[in-house]
Amino acid sequence: MIQQQYPSQLLEKAVQEFSKLPGIGRKTALRLVLWMLRQDDADIASFAEAVSKLKAEVKYCKVCHNVSDSDICPICADHRRDQTTVCVVENIQDVMAIENTQQFQGLYHVLGGVISPMDGMGPADIEIDSLINRVGEGEVQEVILALSPTMEGDTTNFYIYRKLAPLGVKVSVIARGIAVGNELEYADEVTLGRSITNRTLFEEK
Amino acid sequence: MIQQQYPSQLLEKAVQEFSKLPGIGRKTALRLVLWMLRQDDADIASFAEAVSKLKAEVKYCKVCHNVSDSDICPICADHRRDQTTVCVVENIQDVMAIENTQQFQGLYHVLGGVISPMDGMGPADIEIDSLINRVGEGEVQEVILALSPTMEGDTTNFYIYRKLAPLGVKVSVIARGIAVGNELEYADEVTLGRSITNRTLFEEK
Repeated sequence: MIQQQYPSQLLEKAVQEFSKLPGIGRKTALRLVLWMLRQDDADIASFAEAVSKLKAEVKYCKVCHNVSDSDICPICADHRRDQTTVCVVENIQDVMAIENTQQFQGLYHVLGGVISPMDGMGPADIEIDSLINRVGEGEVQEVILALSPTMEGDTTNFYIYRKLAPLGVKVSVIARGIAVGNELEYADEVTLGRSITNRTLFEEK
Repeated sequence: MIQQQYPSQLLEKAVQEFSKLPGIGRKTALRLVLWMLRQDDADIASFAEAVSKLKAEVKYCKVCHNVSDSDICPICADHRRDQTTVCVVENIQDVMAIENTQQFQGLYHVLGGVISPMDGMGPADIEIDSLINRVGEGEVQEVILALSPTMEGDTTNFYIYRKLAPLGVKVSVIARGIAVGNELEYADEVTLGRSITNRTLFEEK
């Protein structure tokens, strides 16, 4: 294929930036950029502002590491929620997926990844130490491990369990209603909700 | 489906903006936004800048109405190109598609749409008057109509032909090698290139 010659450097630059986004190639990027050219100035300014503000101003909750507009996220700050149960998830999408089931009233802990030697992710690269410290403060009575049922998820579950066991806290895992190998965030709400309700005690095999 | 509660207004706003883009729903928007959160500040600033500069600084060529960084686009400004042949296209993608065939050495005229009463687009809404004026200046000897072979394209061809006929300019249409009903920009380069080479004189049926 011949390298496409854009008639404008500004267009070329915008297409380049859009085609960096995951799942967006140059043809789609061009379509998005040309669509933008047809919108009002104010709409595009609003888009650009949302993007730059997002990165510049977004915070992460100091307790659970979820994204937040303040130092403590609305979930951690909500005292009607069960402060003694902490659900450990891989990422922010997983928090939103579980919140959507409306079957969990405890708090979260976002690891920001799972242990994956293949990808160079070790225990120190994710929020495990902060989880141990948080449980060590004494208020948490149960930790629910809600990672995707993949090899990396299982490895991380096991690692966390070994770290938490000496603290005498109850450690459970979500029921494996989810087909092994699937990503948690794509599970349907009923299955995901049930897997939280039917959680079982973590057993060292 | 339960309305998704985002943990951050900034996140919510960014997802909203992304889901306005054509072909991007809220789930994809969220994926793009969370991907952005994991990138470097500089990369995101660069993305936001490209978007706002695009809209604020891009110009349209005063001759052919293609996007351009200057008042006259690089194609119109290139004196090695055949100044006597003008290819009329619907939009900017079509210019790029024809340029990619490397089989056309003349200039372009971007209408910015086609006549489509169903969509409320009349002859005055697209760049037809400017085409007539341009041809009226006398240098243009042939106008190639390269619109998509749809009903709207045919209507527009016919309208333009009737306006140009009194000026004594040769009017041709690209060969209908492209399957009727297809959009021009998705045609393969060989078919599109051949349809330019094998163009025929416009005949009033």
